[in-house]
Amino acid sequence: MSDLTPTPDDKFSFGLWTVGWQGTDVFGPASRSLLDPVEATYRLAEIGAAAVTFHDDDLVPDESLREATLERFEKALADTGLVVEMVTTNLFSHPVFKEGGLTANNREVRRYALSKVVRNIDLAASLGARTFVLWGGREGAEHGGGKDVQAALDRYAESLNLLCAYVTEQGYDLRFALEPKPNEPRGDILLPTIGHALAFIGELDDPARVGLNPEVGHEEMAGLNFAQGISQALWHDKLFHVDLNGQHGPRFDQDLRFGAGNVRGAFWTVDALLGAGSGKAYDGYVHFDFKPPRAEASDGVWASASACMRNYLVLRERVRSFRADPEVAAALDAAEVATLREPTMAPGETLADLRAATYDIEGLAERSVGMEVLDQLAMDHLLGIR
Amino acid sequence: MSDLTPTPDDKFSFGLWTVGWQGTDVFGPASRSLLDPVEATYRLAEIGAAAVTFHDDDLVPDESLREATLERFEKALADTGLVVEMVTTNLFSHPVFKEGGLTANNREVRRYALSKVVRNIDLAASLGARTFVLWGGREGAEHGGGKDVQAALDRYAESLNLLCAYVTEQGYDLRFALEPKPNEPRGDILLPTIGHALAFIGELDDPARVGLNPEVGHEEMAGLNFAQGISQALWHDKLFHVDLNGQHGPRFDQDLRFGAGNVRGAFWTVDALLGAGSGKAYDGYVHFDFKPPRAEASDGVWASASACMRNYLVLRERVRSFRADPEVAAALDAAEVATLREPTMAPGETLADLRAATYDIEGLAERSVGMEVLDQLAMDHLLGIR
Amino acid sequence: MSDLTPTPDDKFSFGLWTVGWQGTDVFGPASRSLLDPVEATYRLAEIGAAAVTFHDDDLVPDESLREATLERFEKALADTGLVVEMVTTNLFSHPVFKEGGLTANNREVRRYALSKVVRNIDLAASLGARTFVLWGGREGAEHGGGKDVQAALDRYAESLNLLCAYVTEQGYDLRFALEPKPNEPRGDILLPTIGHALAFIGELDDPARVGLNPEVGHEEMAGLNFAQGISQALWHDKLFHVDLNGQHGPRFDQDLRFGAGNVRGAFWTVDALLGAGSGKAYDGYVHFDFKPPRAEASDGVWASASACMRNYLVLRERVRSFRADPEVAAALDAAEVATLREPTMAPGETLADLRAATYDIEGLAERSVGMEVLDQLAMDHLLGIR
Amino acid sequence: MSDLTPTPDDKFSFGLWTVGWQGTDVFGPASRSLLDPVEATYRLAEIGAAAVTFHDDDLVPDESLREATLERFEKALADTGLVVEMVTTNLFSHPVFKEGGLTANNREVRRYALSKVVRNIDLAASLGARTFVLWGGREGAEHGGGKDVQAALDRYAESLNLLCAYVTEQGYDLRFALEPKPNEPRGDILLPTIGHALAFIGELDDPARVGLNPEVGHEEMAGLNFAQGISQALWHDKLFHVDLNGQHGPRFDQDLRFGAGNVRGAFWTVDALLGAGSGKAYDGYVHFDFKPPRAEASDGVWASASACMRNYLVLRERVRSFRADPEVAAALDAAEVATLREPTMAPGETLADLRAATYDIEGLAERSVGMEVLDQLAMDHLLGIR
Repeated sequence: MSDLTPTPDDKFSFGLWTVGWQGTDVFGPASRSLLDPVEATYRLAEIGAAAVTFHDDDLVPDESLREATLERFEKALADTGLVVEMVTTNLFSHPVFKEGGLTANNREVRRYALSKVVRNIDLAASLGARTFVLWGGREGAEHGGGKDVQAALDRYAESLNLLCAYVTEQGYDLRFALEPKPNEPRGDILLPTIGHALAFIGELDDPARVGLNPEVGHEEMAGLNFAQGISQALWHDKLFHVDLNGQHGPRFDQDLRFGAGNVRGAFWTVDALLGAGSGKAYDGYVHFDFKPPRAEASDGVWASASACMRNYLVLRERVRSFRADPEVAAALDAAEVATLREPTMAPGETLADLRAATYDIEGLAERSVGMEVLDQLAMDHLLGIR
Repeated sequence: MSDLTPTPDDKFSFGLWTVGWQGTDVFGPASRSLLDPVEATYRLAEIGAAAVTFHDDDLVPDESLREATLERFEKALADTGLVVEMVTTNLFSHPVFKEGGLTANNREVRRYALSKVVRNIDLAASLGARTFVLWGGREGAEHGGGKDVQAALDRYAESLNLLCAYVTEQGYDLRFALEPKPNEPRGDILLPTIGHALAFIGELDDPARVGLNPEVGHEEMAGLNFAQGISQALWHDKLFHVDLNGQHGPRFDQDLRFGAGNVRGAFWTVDALLGAGSGKAYDGYVHFDFKPPRAEASDGVWASASACMRNYLVLRERVRSFRADPEVAAALDAAEVATLREPTMAPGETLADLRAATYDIEGLAERSVGMEVLDQLAMDHLLGIR
Repeated sequence: MSDLTPTPDDKFSFGLWTVGWQGTDVFGPASRSLLDPVEATYRLAEIGAAAVTFHDDDLVPDESLREATLERFEKALADTGLVVEMVTTNLFSHPVFKEGGLTANNREVRRYALSKVVRNIDLAASLGARTFVLWGGREGAEHGGGKDVQAALDRYAESLNLLCAYVTEQGYDLRFALEPKPNEPRGDILLPTIGHALAFIGELDDPARVGLNPEVGHEEMAGLNFAQGISQALWHDKLFHVDLNGQHGPRFDQDLRFGAGNVRGAFWTVDALLGAGSGKAYDGYVHFDFKPPRAEASDGVWASASACMRNYLVLRERVRSFRADPEVAAALDAAEVATLREPTMAPGETLADLRAATYDIEGLAERSVGMEVLDQLAMDHLLGIR
Repeated sequence: MSDLTPTPDDKFSFGLWTVGWQGTDVFGPASRSLLDPVEATYRLAEIGAAAVTFHDDDLVPDESLREATLERFEKALADTGLVVEMVTTNLFSHPVFKEGGLTANNREVRRYALSKVVRNIDLAASLGARTFVLWGGREGAEHGGGKDVQAALDRYAESLNLLCAYVTEQGYDLRFALEPKPNEPRGDILLPTIGHALAFIGELDDPARVGLNPEVGHEEMAGLNFAQGISQALWHDKLFHVDLNGQHGPRFDQDLRFGAGNVRGAFWTVDALLGAGSGKAYDGYVHFDFKPPRAEASDGVWASASACMRNYLVLRERVRSFRADPEVAAALDAAEVATLREPTMAPGETLADLRAATYDIEGLAERSVGMEVLDQLAMDHLLGIR
């Protein structure tokens, strides 16, 4: 195993709200004291992060201290060399957004939400962020009658179109990334999966400026395969950002550190990000969006943050060893994995040719597909026994 | 309650494979004898269906009897007035498709699959079907290494592009409808949800010819809200067809009769199909894709088929009474549901105006949203107590 | 439909924490102001409740006002005629319980938790409560290594044994009811289902004093059938109490009002509580443990509380009409439901007799089981069309 | 890594139905030809199994060949040294059991089911099996009205009581192990989890003769933690047998090879079986109940069977290294894991003492619990980087 110390080239990034989460949940109040976001920035640099991200309210919870806070924060960035790679706006905590932000039934709320995003886009641009994430955690409903879904999508699209036009006008080098989630805190959230958000983007005025920020746990809460999901996003050229964490399938949003939960899924996630199989790879920041469990004190906060990076580095090495192994190459051949990259029709062929052909159906039915052998090789690499 | 007898105007349609399912599952062989598809057609007409649909193998399990079977079937259509509104190809039963059809790693299998679809398209067109469904039940994988997802999407797109071109060349009045499913029988199936399939369609050469055939249970297996899903499909003008049935959330594919399982979801599903809230409505056939439980004998098969239609008729009437109730209208107003149809920005306004405005944030935070009152009215209508 | 106004005979009961929930969740702070528990008591009486229940911290959040609060509360009980039918202790909100209460690894925490319960038992007894609920929401772990499950069960049993002995010594007319839950807020909670808790009780010193308080949503989060679960609890004579609410399957704990979510499950839940099929019935309070959604203002809080009772009354009437319908009786006969109450072996028979007998296996395999017909009758009654 | 070749001391055991599964599922017929159970026995011996298990119908599908088959099978056992450690009866495949076996509504079916079990118990005893498993896959219902759950539990108990009495009378050294499952193939199965089955056993006439055979995937289908479940079973002295396989959370029953699916859960499962934390350990056979995916040909069948054992051996070594690591010991101390084994009350103490004591509640609330550090050490051991 090579060195597991993070370096800036690893492009690890953390939300300030992750290490800053105080532990408040439905069943109890904060278990940890407030962590100053500027101190968090210094600390994240120490443990190996290359970048930080934030919601407006994470960084500037107190508007009266806005200027002073930003000054201190920019000094921290300068001192540490960290960059702000992504910014996002909190449209879900304040009770004004209790029934939605950009798709609230109440028009005044929608207007306020939009103004809050725009203001924060200016901050993002001023800090050099290249990605602006939108997670619509309160956009949705508990029941069927209270939300006109088609109208909500119209309003969502209206907002995105306005925001894209704004960014273009301002000349900002900034792209939007939508973050899907199926439920929690709302009963059903709009754009619940990677797929729904991808489809929605296709209807916007400027689809090239909008992509995705998928989160491991959000897809796994729906029982979906995250690696497969981001592979489809890559296929659409839409994997603008990523939120790595851990989850144990359909249940509440656990936001475990990356590597916890479904570790096998984490292996294939890293494989997909690296484009290790074939095709397009992700080249953005490796962003962690997790919550140190409420039971942990400060030591556990930082241990879990460090472990996110450590697990990524271990899994990246394991993916590389898997992909470099000649026996794996042979197993991939036996499983005809690369054959799928060949067009089904040869140049010049027609469907009539295909219909005229004869097929050894019974022979093909009995063929070996070699998937179990291949997957066991992956298991061996994951567990480090090859 | 008005008459619950189905009429042709209700446009009820059944897959021949539904009443024809013999009960074979992973844990046991058939519990019911083979039902002749032509007899099933007569019987479906008797109970009130307006149309039938089939996989090639449902109608013609024995190629040597192809001509004779088709002749008998066409006579049954003529005798009963039933139409064939949709046809689909079985690319999942024969072991040749054990590792996929159109996206199998093996190229010869892909070629055979494609030829099987094309041949069946001709049959569909000859019988007057307007919709051709593709359910890729074996397109997927149990493990991460055996399937190059980006390549698989390339091949899927290649196939759809070839098929669309073929239909155009032939001048068939036929559209394709993809049917998403997250898993079963494969561990993870490609295009697992409505959203993923919608996004995929956007990348095709002729996206106007391809839409969706979502199934209640397939979305609910992922914990997703079906009514919300088809509303998004309608928003994209992509609800070409629908498969109604019942399911109890994330578990094996139950294929219960429509109305069983999540009956509240069924109410909102009918509401969405009718476009009862607002926006676009579905105008196609009301197609049932269910399996009479294996325990049932022939009487249970037909009882469950009839109950699918009965439940649809009851729920349709309940949806209409809900939407026509003045107290509901008042509750919708109180919940500002229609307000969401108003653009967030007024004509002539700019984002600068929105930023310059002041908002009564605390007042808005405390406002009544009226969702529980509204949903209880829906509950009262569903249960028939208003 | 008969009168849907609750009466004291309906024995409806509410937790003070239900209407008192302020809307704090993982993603945002309170959306509603504090509701005085004494005022809540008056209001619950007005809308038709017969009883209230509370956690120590709900009623007395401020220890310095303990005497004054209790005095006001007892006056409210006297004024309204409401009783305190159940009391429970909050061992999950304060961060001291962040890693568990009665099964925290830290022994001092366990001792404090136990002392908090004992003190509250005295209060419960003094107020005439007959049931004492224990929900161990923080008893569990996120990971496998941090909790010795066998030791945790030892400590849980130790606590229950001490508490039972205490209640016996004091001569209190009080029984304990354990409330299972699979997860949230901990990754995995001890005694995750009705079954696990029932089994645990069997190992206690005084099992007769301990039973269950199952909650609809907690079982449905695990995809389990609640009606089936409480039927098993009744079979064990252990359904001491019940928490009714609504949930949409495996996801976060939604705590919807009763009737929302899985309404078909709610029908069978009421059927099971009434012992309407056969066997033992529940005769305790009909207790609602729900959370008015965070989006609602005060009007929605009370609308949802009233709707819990309304839905129960409607479903009870529908269950009674189902069970009284002669056609249902005939369908139950056809489905041989009552036949299951007959012993499989006749008096005097032996297994040797059974082995010597001949069976018409093929005939039995083809028999009608009549389940779909029966379930459709239930559907008709649920929807009020018979 | 030490040698990963299975030895008889590892006590690996396979169901003949695992490698013998032909691939029939709801969506397609067999993809593999029939495997002779006697040949399978020789082959399992070759790859390292120490024992085999079977359903009556696996071994003797054709009654007319019963004697000859048994003779060949006993020769195979003698030739290979394999033992039959467990036998079970198929009460779920034949359509006669379509609505249940021991709890079918139809009394004649129940009688036939019971006679089939008894006959097979004699075979089990004659072959030296010590465990007799009962999986009631068809015992349950799709709907609420068709099954009287309390009566069904009466009949289940009646059957178990008769079977226990029979085994006692015959002097067989044989114990029963119930195998819980929440659903599939029935909508809801009786005794859906480890907990429900444990509780049920407590009501039997001879509870000492009945324990459990939990299966990884069956608990994980309900989102439950398998290691925690078998730890509770061990606590009750009821882990008589175990079925190891793999699953990806709530969905259809995948029956993946052990180690596939939730590999982190597999690590803690092995830890629990070894009693590595503390407390009681499992000392029976390590039994695999998986299905080689339908896509695989014969090579994949045997590769996956071998991989079950390989993965167990790797994980066992990793668990042992975790438990032997001094840094882990320190982390366990820091997390106070062993402290939970100490009684909460000291000898001579009373609850009055606990109430009289003062607690540093705020100090305890802020304490470090050290769970993340500990779990990351487990992760390091799982991945082989310590």
